[in-house]
Amino acid sequence: MVRVLVVHSSLFGANARLAGLVQEALEESGAQVRSRGVRQVVLASAQVEPAAAIPLASADDLEWAEGFVFTSPSHTGLPSAAIKAFVDENHDAAVRGAYVDKTFTAMATSGFAHAGQERVVDDLNAVAAAWGCVLVPPSTAFDRINALNGNPFGLSFVLSHGEIVDVESASTVLRLHLGRFVSVTSALARARTGRDGAAASPEHPARAVDALD
Amino acid sequence: MVRVLVVHSSLFGANARLAGLVQEALEESGAQVRSRGVRQVVLASAQVEPAAAIPLASADDLEWAEGFVFTSPSHTGLPSAAIKAFVDENHDAAVRGAYVDKTFTAMATSGFAHAGQERVVDDLNAVAAAWGCVLVPPSTAFDRINALNGNPFGLSFVLSHGEIVDVESASTVLRLHLGRFVSVTSALARARTGRDGAAASPEHPARAVDALD
Amino acid sequence: MVRVLVVHSSLFGANARLAGLVQEALEESGAQVRSRGVRQVVLASAQVEPAAAIPLASADDLEWAEGFVFTSPSHTGLPSAAIKAFVDENHDAAVRGAYVDKTFTAMATSGFAHAGQERVVDDLNAVAAAWGCVLVPPSTAFDRINALNGNPFGLSFVLSHGEIVDVESASTVLRLHLGRFVSVTSALARARTGRDGAAASPEHPARAVDALD
Amino acid sequence: MVRVLVVHSSLFGANARLAGLVQEALEESGAQVRSRGVRQVVLASAQVEPAAAIPLASADDLEWAEGFVFTSPSHTGLPSAAIKAFVDENHDAAVRGAYVDKTFTAMATSGFAHAGQERVVDDLNAVAAAWGCVLVPPSTAFDRINALNGNPFGLSFVLSHGEIVDVESASTVLRLHLGRFVSVTSALARARTGRDGAAASPEHPARAVDALD
Repeated sequence: MVRVLVVHSSLFGANARLAGLVQEALEESGAQVRSRGVRQVVLASAQVEPAAAIPLASADDLEWAEGFVFTSPSHTGLPSAAIKAFVDENHDAAVRGAYVDKTFTAMATSGFAHAGQERVVDDLNAVAAAWGCVLVPPSTAFDRINALNGNPFGLSFVLSHGEIVDVESASTVLRLHLGRFVSVTSALARARTGRDGAAASPEHPARAVDALD
Repeated sequence: MVRVLVVHSSLFGANARLAGLVQEALEESGAQVRSRGVRQVVLASAQVEPAAAIPLASADDLEWAEGFVFTSPSHTGLPSAAIKAFVDENHDAAVRGAYVDKTFTAMATSGFAHAGQERVVDDLNAVAAAWGCVLVPPSTAFDRINALNGNPFGLSFVLSHGEIVDVESASTVLRLHLGRFVSVTSALARARTGRDGAAASPEHPARAVDALD
Repeated sequence: MVRVLVVHSSLFGANARLAGLVQEALEESGAQVRSRGVRQVVLASAQVEPAAAIPLASADDLEWAEGFVFTSPSHTGLPSAAIKAFVDENHDAAVRGAYVDKTFTAMATSGFAHAGQERVVDDLNAVAAAWGCVLVPPSTAFDRINALNGNPFGLSFVLSHGEIVDVESASTVLRLHLGRFVSVTSALARARTGRDGAAASPEHPARAVDALD
Repeated sequence: MVRVLVVHSSLFGANARLAGLVQEALEESGAQVRSRGVRQVVLASAQVEPAAAIPLASADDLEWAEGFVFTSPSHTGLPSAAIKAFVDENHDAAVRGAYVDKTFTAMATSGFAHAGQERVVDDLNAVAAAWGCVLVPPSTAFDRINALNGNPFGLSFVLSHGEIVDVESASTVLRLHLGRFVSVTSALARARTGRDGAAASPEHPARAVDALD
């Protein structure tokens, strides 16, 4: 049973709801799922009530999973500061190779068709590339997935009044893409069993911190 | 006298020192400069002593300036969460058009030649594009600037033990590029005088927040 | 009167028609316009009749213009090979600084809302950055432009059966954005008059070809 | 025995030599390799003698392979027009799903440390994402690979006088990264055996051409 971590960034709840649909689709494909949020870091003018029931993603969650699904709203065309802070806080494990060969797929929301939907998933993919993940983007090779909007780099969803437009279509697309994602994750997880974990290898000492800022 | 805001993100001081060199080069070109940092948002394992003397960038600084220089280290191939939080916190003014037609140029540092030096400046340029800024990247058309490393999207610098390698060369390249930046900023600032400010126009009402998350 | 070159890449005519709308909008803003196509380079299975009336963009057109508008369809998420070949063929003038401080804005079409609409304009912007152009993306600061789809990096249009959907709305958005583009181009062109042209400066010798491949 | 196709774009021979090093590293990892060039499409001022011995990549080569390695020089910060033309010419098979779940990794060369080394591999990765490939970037998690230059998105090499600087180091890095690439490709190839090929599925009818241009 493949273990998948879903990490979402959500200020008003839309990406939290998206993460719920993601979890359903993953579980239908036979995955074991942890769904987690990230700590908000932006000083909001309007105080947002935290969604009490959503636990925050931890280093242990990243370690546990064999595949990652990250979802973020587009904030000024890029991933939210909150999900970026989560990435930065787990930098040390990443450079030790802790996430090598885990699978990754990215998702985004925004209030316009564009407004960074391609760039947000592309940036999340860049994080996964730096971590040594194996990337599974949705592509434009599946007509029933293209029906959503044809974003090849990651599934992306337009919000209207804080809600995903047409939840049923979204669920269909999520099932199609995440079924493939689980299948790739499963193939890689089986291959990893029985050989030395990448992270344990002497090829991966921690990088010297003195180059950072 | 053109007004330029320099915003840097710095955990251990390297980008703060880079911002100092930027300020010198801008002032040599006749610009009036405000140099500012951003609030750290990442929970660091090692506590970093804040550089006490560096004031934080404010909404007023963004309003005041006619041109922006943003510098960020590469954290996992993207701009730091700290500079992204600063961007997110100033989203409302951006969608009201407050930064339209101001000039922008981006800079980055990292511990390797690559490790995201191109992507970091490209992401900062994406923020500026969303804001309605006019972008002035360094290009590959100037051989004395190319001598640095030929990054066309923004000047970028390799750090060694937390220091910019070859400060004298860096200063030369900064003077060449920022001289051109000040000249473009000045031309646009003069053109803006005497016509209705873009931000005041009925074309720019605040965008409905209900599409955000 | 500002001189603007419109370069489009078109296999079946859609971007040629888009270039026509672009020309109208530019001329309404007072610009003098040259509209040009690019040579096709892909071996098509179905032979496409060349649009006889459209002259190909030349080195002289690039030299003549004070601002550039490039439009390309998304082919596999990137600009077409045809427009890329046009860029590559004008590389030598670019490294001599021939396009420094000319303005640039990019446009794209595709058959889906996404399918690379953000990446195509972003890649065209990257070319302009390498050339030393000053970039004028449409931003997300103008609600009447956002009504199109909110792509901050360049205007982008969905095609249906080879036609731009809702030509009237497209024209409105083109007028708004290109009016600002002409105004920025004009400000920079005026500033350039009377000082040494950037291209003539000893800062811009041709780059050694021995690093290429 | 895993089947890998190496596609390179080369005007003066540097990427052809890189492809040779790639082939050696792949074969050491137990892969069966086809090494291919692409047709030049740019009208060169200086006529370049075609490297006679290098066969051109064909649709059959793409079909045959279970994994792809693409290498391109940076031309104006983007992949060469030649490799883009090759991609465009194989668009129809891509939208029929012919390349789904094949693995992909990208490489680049340029005359400066930057000059688009990150963007070139990122663009090639975008093609692979659109095709439905599973991406295996080199990451920054391996110190011995980082010693090259730390480009997380694809291996990239600086050229000097048309030659890769330090071939021995390049070979070491290629062996490390391509060993992992072959191992991931092998795991996915084994998993694919015995189930219906993705391309044969009714989920993948050819996309209607009427949205293209």
